[in-house]
Amino acid sequence: MQEEGVGKEEIKMRIERFQKYLKAHDIGGAIILQNVDRYYFTGTIQSSTLFIPAEGEEVLIVHKGIERAMEESPLKNIVKGKPSRIEDLIRENKISSERIGMELDVVPVNIYTKYKRYLSNVNIVDASHLIRKTRMIKSEYEISQIRRAASILDENMNQVKEILKPGITEIEVDAYLGYLIRKKGHMGMMRMRGWNQEMMYVHVLSGRTGSLISFLDSPQGGAGTCAAMAQGAGYKKIERNEPIEIDHGICINGYIGDQARTYVIGDLDDRLKRAHECSYEIHRFFMENARPGIYCNEIYNEAVKIASSWGLNEYFMGYGEGKVKFIGHGIGLEIDDFPVISPNFKEPLQENMTLSLEPKFVFPEMGVVGLEDIYLIKGDGVERITGIEQRIFYL
Amino acid sequence: MQEEGVGKEEIKMRIERFQKYLKAHDIGGAIILQNVDRYYFTGTIQSSTLFIPAEGEEVLIVHKGIERAMEESPLKNIVKGKPSRIEDLIRENKISSERIGMELDVVPVNIYTKYKRYLSNVNIVDASHLIRKTRMIKSEYEISQIRRAASILDENMNQVKEILKPGITEIEVDAYLGYLIRKKGHMGMMRMRGWNQEMMYVHVLSGRTGSLISFLDSPQGGAGTCAAMAQGAGYKKIERNEPIEIDHGICINGYIGDQARTYVIGDLDDRLKRAHECSYEIHRFFMENARPGIYCNEIYNEAVKIASSWGLNEYFMGYGEGKVKFIGHGIGLEIDDFPVISPNFKEPLQENMTLSLEPKFVFPEMGVVGLEDIYLIKGDGVERITGIEQRIFYL
Repeated sequence: MQEEGVGKEEIKMRIERFQKYLKAHDIGGAIILQNVDRYYFTGTIQSSTLFIPAEGEEVLIVHKGIERAMEESPLKNIVKGKPSRIEDLIRENKISSERIGMELDVVPVNIYTKYKRYLSNVNIVDASHLIRKTRMIKSEYEISQIRRAASILDENMNQVKEILKPGITEIEVDAYLGYLIRKKGHMGMMRMRGWNQEMMYVHVLSGRTGSLISFLDSPQGGAGTCAAMAQGAGYKKIERNEPIEIDHGICINGYIGDQARTYVIGDLDDRLKRAHECSYEIHRFFMENARPGIYCNEIYNEAVKIASSWGLNEYFMGYGEGKVKFIGHGIGLEIDDFPVISPNFKEPLQENMTLSLEPKFVFPEMGVVGLEDIYLIKGDGVERITGIEQRIFYL
Repeated sequence: MQEEGVGKEEIKMRIERFQKYLKAHDIGGAIILQNVDRYYFTGTIQSSTLFIPAEGEEVLIVHKGIERAMEESPLKNIVKGKPSRIEDLIRENKISSERIGMELDVVPVNIYTKYKRYLSNVNIVDASHLIRKTRMIKSEYEISQIRRAASILDENMNQVKEILKPGITEIEVDAYLGYLIRKKGHMGMMRMRGWNQEMMYVHVLSGRTGSLISFLDSPQGGAGTCAAMAQGAGYKKIERNEPIEIDHGICINGYIGDQARTYVIGDLDDRLKRAHECSYEIHRFFMENARPGIYCNEIYNEAVKIASSWGLNEYFMGYGEGKVKFIGHGIGLEIDDFPVISPNFKEPLQENMTLSLEPKFVFPEMGVVGLEDIYLIKGDGVERITGIEQRIFYL
């Protein structure tokens, strides 16, 4: 009745990879609480506390949903219990270090404090970076889920052409796309790790609304329907001769797809056309050069050089205070997976990373244009997973 | 182009109410970071740090989106700056206590730690309870937004009858309802304060899937599409003679509506019919007795008594480990606003509270039935805000 879950061997491989990181950082074990991370290591999001020791066997303490957790997760040690049970577990485990990891980037203070009470003799350290590094390299199973997500996005990006007419509102287009993806298995929600970010499944932005600066860590924000949700589609009607940027996400069986295309009814200003060409040029650069060993920050720097050489740096990835410092982000269980293609992410690409590259240009009052595609890093280069043509769609 | 925002007088009133709580608890001021809380006190969710001193003027330090923050928020003191600016602000403010409040129930540890560095001379204490108490009493403006949300839900709960046929899948019904509400201004997302809860806009659960126990703090969970999203509609086809429970949320201009009805194509087992009657009986009890001064925990206890007197306590609000300990929850900017109608919420109802009451019954393998409606507490009683008939809909 449900999608295929995560297999036993896969879970084993994930946990072993994470345990290597724990040992390398002298962390005796990790308490994993966030739904996404817990799902990654167990195959279930039922209410529970996961303990992964650096050496030895992981234990899932289920607080609610024990039957379902046992059905969904291939883990061997699944027990019913309260969070406080972690105290005994750590004592019994003879852990190799007094440092215990938690997801300090996402766990709220009060929950952290509760767990700290159970762990009076250990030091709690942040293990989120290690979890994200573990999740950064995708398995064949994960890549196949992302391919499914990408192919549904391809379908939607083609199908949306049928309804883009002058006078339709952004939010009507958004509602239509949401309807299509949900029927095809979108799980009803996007997941983003960054706090206060609230990722939507689509941004349909036309003309001026594409240039509105927002709180969101994204080159484009949109008007939204209200100040309480100041992003995404709003009530603006789509007009002729303005860029319609559709940045479309989806989440299939836990895995995210993220793609963007520029549409226009009529024709576009030459400046926008040229900026779109420059976005394509950056994608071409990426496709020709990305491979294991190339550094993420270097790709970012090269992209900025290309934008600058076209005289477009002022508008690249936003303008003014709206500028963001990345051109791509890993995708997987979260839309802000590692790696980040940014000046601060000084790590090389590796085989089986999946990421969305989104070089975009934002022009004040005029809007946003650019291509976003999903790529898979392979042993000797890169494969574009999203399939539709990398061009402006004139309607 | 956007919905009506929050007015200046309204914001002033909200801040003053909160300041009274701060003073009463000897807290010198509060740093407010979460989107929802910040929106409540400012009218904007642009990236920023809000400081509300117990006495004196609040300041909004905007990190990104300054122009938009100034357009959206009626606050007087809006400045562009980094989070570290809070240090100067607190020093300059001559605050009346060394205790400074933060939203420790939602702020992640790493963000808390960052702010703690700016505030070496103060003690940070949890102010979330005071914020939630401030937000618990709704203004006329807020009530009017919730009325709008409720009336769209009423429309949808009627319109869904047209597509409920044997063979349609839960997820198809979900997609259709999502499409309708988004076109009518649903802001694209529900907000729930509880960590790891991930609230969806609708649960369409039919027969057995309505009885599946899940991690969610809700009497019903649903199969969902996959273990990664183990709640809500799944791929199950709707059949004749089984309960179809539609628990429908919406968020209009920031404000949430939440309503549930039971539908059936054909006829229902007598036990389920009787349980539905008992749900209605609890609503009737509530409508006759709820008014300012009546305690939330007493309402809960009376509801349990009614369920018990009908011999149905075993199935009330879930069965076995799936049982939850509440029958209603405040609604406003979040779906888990105060008050909670639970044994642990020992506070009286007050005028201008808005809440959803959801006495439901879950029968193993058979499914879930029950009514959920939105109520407004008035000076002398209660008004039901959702408008459609409180009965089973036979199709």
